[in-house]
Amino acid sequence: MKAAIILSGGLDSTTLLYDIVSRGYEVKAISFDYNQKHNREVHYAIETCLMLKVPHRVYNLEVLNSLAPSSLTRCEIEVPKGHYAASNMKSTVVSNRNMVLIALAASYAISRGINTILYGAHSGDHAVYPDCRPEFVEAMKSVLKLCDYTAIELEAPYLNLTKGDILRIGLRLGVDYSKTWTCYNGRELACGKCGSCIERLEAFEQNNAIDPLRYEN
Amino acid sequence: MKAAIILSGGLDSTTLLYDIVSRGYEVKAISFDYNQKHNREVHYAIETCLMLKVPHRVYNLEVLNSLAPSSLTRCEIEVPKGHYAASNMKSTVVSNRNMVLIALAASYAISRGINTILYGAHSGDHAVYPDCRPEFVEAMKSVLKLCDYTAIELEAPYLNLTKGDILRIGLRLGVDYSKTWTCYNGRELACGKCGSCIERLEAFEQNNAIDPLRYEN
Repeated sequence: MKAAIILSGGLDSTTLLYDIVSRGYEVKAISFDYNQKHNREVHYAIETCLMLKVPHRVYNLEVLNSLAPSSLTRCEIEVPKGHYAASNMKSTVVSNRNMVLIALAASYAISRGINTILYGAHSGDHAVYPDCRPEFVEAMKSVLKLCDYTAIELEAPYLNLTKGDILRIGLRLGVDYSKTWTCYNGRELACGKCGSCIERLEAFEQNNAIDPLRYEN
Repeated sequence: MKAAIILSGGLDSTTLLYDIVSRGYEVKAISFDYNQKHNREVHYAIETCLMLKVPHRVYNLEVLNSLAPSSLTRCEIEVPKGHYAASNMKSTVVSNRNMVLIALAASYAISRGINTILYGAHSGDHAVYPDCRPEFVEAMKSVLKLCDYTAIELEAPYLNLTKGDILRIGLRLGVDYSKTWTCYNGRELACGKCGSCIERLEAFEQNNAIDPLRYEN
């Protein structure tokens, strides 16, 4: 089966890539650089695709930064510390980002005769990001069936899994998690304190595994 | 009512802008430059907004050109001649363009506390562009209600009108059609032969009006 995957270079989408490669999908990966502070994730996406021999392109999407400023993209807005579900994480929302990324992935897929798009939304995202909720994904599935002469399918197989569940799949598949980036800050080492880091560290703890990534503390 | 309009600078969206300004909407306009051959439309969008005193921004969207090549954007692919509905117009499709533009408009709107997006799709588009069909627009409406913490509304009031109907509205509103661009070729004068020009000229004929734009022949 031919598919295009939206690969951020984070834990979830990287696991999903390993997962579908192991299932024999003929997959092409695309990543977007929208000036996210944590664009180190894009470099890891490149490394992972080189290793897995998956065709990969990085597209410049600075326009998203101009349209929808966020603490993820603007130096003058600090990334909040604390647990992922906390309401102060709202400043990390890039408004409607997932619809934009999925829409662009569909443009890419349609132009290349690919009719399946994969993306790694998971249940931990639901609390903070409206465009990760199952009802949003269902509505996107409907509109993708209508955006071209033939239906485009959207698959988000991890939608109801926790990050711990996803990590369990990835550890079994031998994912190299030293080549994934989760921290929302763009510093040399992961901060260990933003909601995204905390959720990742908890996932490793749940799996009695050690995160190979280096942290500030 | 606050709204954001996707303004191409063509006949339909320019008429829609005049229309909603006359209805007292507090409107902001956004245009996208994706290296379309006919990016003169963007210049006309700027002129129209200056004249109507509507806040306006042009965003660079070259990424769409990289993702989805089309005869609209690539010099090496010729824009077909002939009637708009003809199947050879398919080369002018920029895959999934409208979903991309609406998704980006939603990012813009959400970030600015605007909850209505307007766009000028019309019935003449349905034959050629899958992402102009009423069922696509309905599905987009559904997903836009779910993409943020509160619902975003999508309005496409000309969806079931012909270009002739839209022109009738605009002529009544005093739209300056010399500041709109419809031709898909990017030459000095409109070609008068591409599907888009033919549809425009027919609309003027149906309204017993003269198109103020200059044509090659």
